[in-house]
Amino acid sequence: MLVDDVMAFWSAHAPDRERGGIFTYLDRDGSRLSTDKAVWLQGRAVWTYAHLYNVLDPRLEWLELSNSTLEFLERHCFDCDDRMFFIVTREGKPLRKRRYMFSETFAIIAYAENAVANNDVQKLERAIDIFRNVLRRFHYPDETTPAKVVPETRSMKSHAMPMILLATARSLRSACEKLLPESSAINECNAVIREAAAEVRDSFYKPELHLLLESVMLDGSMLDTPEGRIVNPGHAIETSWFLLEEARQQNDAAMKDLALSILKDSLQVGWDEKHGGILYFVDAKGLTPDPMEHDMKLWWPHCEAMYATLLGYNMTGDAALLQWHERVREWTLSRFPDPEFGEWYGYLNRDGSPSKRIKGNMWKGPFHIPRALLKLHQESLRA
Amino acid sequence: MLVDDVMAFWSAHAPDRERGGIFTYLDRDGSRLSTDKAVWLQGRAVWTYAHLYNVLDPRLEWLELSNSTLEFLERHCFDCDDRMFFIVTREGKPLRKRRYMFSETFAIIAYAENAVANNDVQKLERAIDIFRNVLRRFHYPDETTPAKVVPETRSMKSHAMPMILLATARSLRSACEKLLPESSAINECNAVIREAAAEVRDSFYKPELHLLLESVMLDGSMLDTPEGRIVNPGHAIETSWFLLEEARQQNDAAMKDLALSILKDSLQVGWDEKHGGILYFVDAKGLTPDPMEHDMKLWWPHCEAMYATLLGYNMTGDAALLQWHERVREWTLSRFPDPEFGEWYGYLNRDGSPSKRIKGNMWKGPFHIPRALLKLHQESLRA
Repeated sequence: MLVDDVMAFWSAHAPDRERGGIFTYLDRDGSRLSTDKAVWLQGRAVWTYAHLYNVLDPRLEWLELSNSTLEFLERHCFDCDDRMFFIVTREGKPLRKRRYMFSETFAIIAYAENAVANNDVQKLERAIDIFRNVLRRFHYPDETTPAKVVPETRSMKSHAMPMILLATARSLRSACEKLLPESSAINECNAVIREAAAEVRDSFYKPELHLLLESVMLDGSMLDTPEGRIVNPGHAIETSWFLLEEARQQNDAAMKDLALSILKDSLQVGWDEKHGGILYFVDAKGLTPDPMEHDMKLWWPHCEAMYATLLGYNMTGDAALLQWHERVREWTLSRFPDPEFGEWYGYLNRDGSPSKRIKGNMWKGPFHIPRALLKLHQESLRA
Repeated sequence: MLVDDVMAFWSAHAPDRERGGIFTYLDRDGSRLSTDKAVWLQGRAVWTYAHLYNVLDPRLEWLELSNSTLEFLERHCFDCDDRMFFIVTREGKPLRKRRYMFSETFAIIAYAENAVANNDVQKLERAIDIFRNVLRRFHYPDETTPAKVVPETRSMKSHAMPMILLATARSLRSACEKLLPESSAINECNAVIREAAAEVRDSFYKPELHLLLESVMLDGSMLDTPEGRIVNPGHAIETSWFLLEEARQQNDAAMKDLALSILKDSLQVGWDEKHGGILYFVDAKGLTPDPMEHDMKLWWPHCEAMYATLLGYNMTGDAALLQWHERVREWTLSRFPDPEFGEWYGYLNRDGSPSKRIKGNMWKGPFHIPRALLKLHQESLRA
């Protein structure tokens, strides 16, 4: 499914052969819904193509797509203040910039993985630069990253930041170990990973409530509003496998236990007993979550859960995790893939029927599905 | 239903007797989901209470609630640059400010209608001041209203602005005619109404496509992206009754024809043939709209459609509009109202089942439903 279905769909429809970069606004059959280019997905695609080239099969096509998309990213997606845009036109003119630094974090993994594919130290140094920029702005916010909420009134922090820093630092460290084993960036990455894991453990995960909160007050306490009570089980499950992989790599039993607790609690709180599948949002007190799309079933939480449960099972032999894996896998693979035009639907209704049949937009592109399918493949070889 | 059900629900649960203003984050039974206060809804509630007092029944309770909520708005919801906040804490500390000026437009109708209730010229002058501020910033954007999209790359305009200016100017003019009949603001309102109606006609309504676009390029052309193709039938229907009321008041046949075309086309494009009800978003080319909530059924488009169809029928005797009115009314009243705890659900799934049973949040409060029920009552007396 990974190569001949999912990647074949993107190779056929995504590349912009004239202007570089990839199109991701694609309808069910791959026809274009818009030529605007989402910067997150440019970076993620660079990573995906380079990673498949590095670990699965050194296909020239993948290397070239990684390189040409990185060139588009480099040329058109940075503002003059070193921050990045959120969306640009087909030609690369800036359309929108956001306060969040996710364009930057995906650019870091793009440069790092592409550097490995090309054995190009300069690209890795560029990744390290962007990483240090992100960390500086995260710790010392400036006018390029304004707060969404008046901080004097209420200061909250979001699970998304430690989560993405954990993933980004793990990718960057891996590239540094290959190309720059003496770089001080490796220790910087280790520190970020330690801090992020501690932040997840001490601030966001609430073992007594059996859930992980998406946003908490600066001291880690829960804000008792719909926003403060939001649980995003798919996000928590994604964090759990970042931690599981790190725990396996470092042989860290405490981190492994933390990750397994987050994983099991999040499956429990997120699984829809009525229709199956993982709910997009849940309220920590069991009330109705405010987002309108709260009970939809999205492709990426199911990708994360399929892999996290198999990884957890392989690391523990826990039959409950194997059962979860089979349950999630059966639900996912019987509903998301599109047998007619290939690839997966992204947005299902609560009952599992497609709400939209599009294959991509500014959030969905060649990333979560190929990453999960590759990791499932690697993990099943390991078992 | 208006007084003993809908308004009784809000009177029982919304007022903050200690701090002033109203709570709108209310669960099905009226229990509070958050004490944060949405500024849009503070202004809208001031209007609703004052308007019911002015035109339906001079209940002291409604006047007091309008006054105390306006006091909260005045004291806590303005920033020092004269712009308003979007959401504040229970005590009135600012939480968030947005680029859009809808907090301000709802404050204008709040001050204007409250001025009439109290026969208070000063409050009306305050409304006129805010109105002029909004117009100035709309025509000459400054740093307090930054663009969402880089304007050098792509400049679009939104139907929401002429629509809200039309409604706001009509409310303000009506108050001026009562309290300040010599004010130059009346002519300013007339000019805004004329321009807004022309903008809707010349830029947003596409008679050849039989729909009204939510956003267009500055020259009125359609941008062929998911965003540019978005149709919000409920919004278009709301605009149609603003225009119908104005056409009746001015005896303007051309405006009446425009409004009726928009109304009929929007019902046609928005009505869900499969499950009934009005879809939240539709794509102008019949593709899948990008917002995840595209096929949900929300309370307010159904409020607007119930009233617009009855008004249109009363102004024309057109049996097709009466049929639409009965169809929309039957669908709406058999699904949205909550017979157990009163008031209406706001968010239904496509099939008409409730997705959330909450009664209020930062968008839903005592506004669309009481306004529609009052206008339906007035219009049925007229028939």
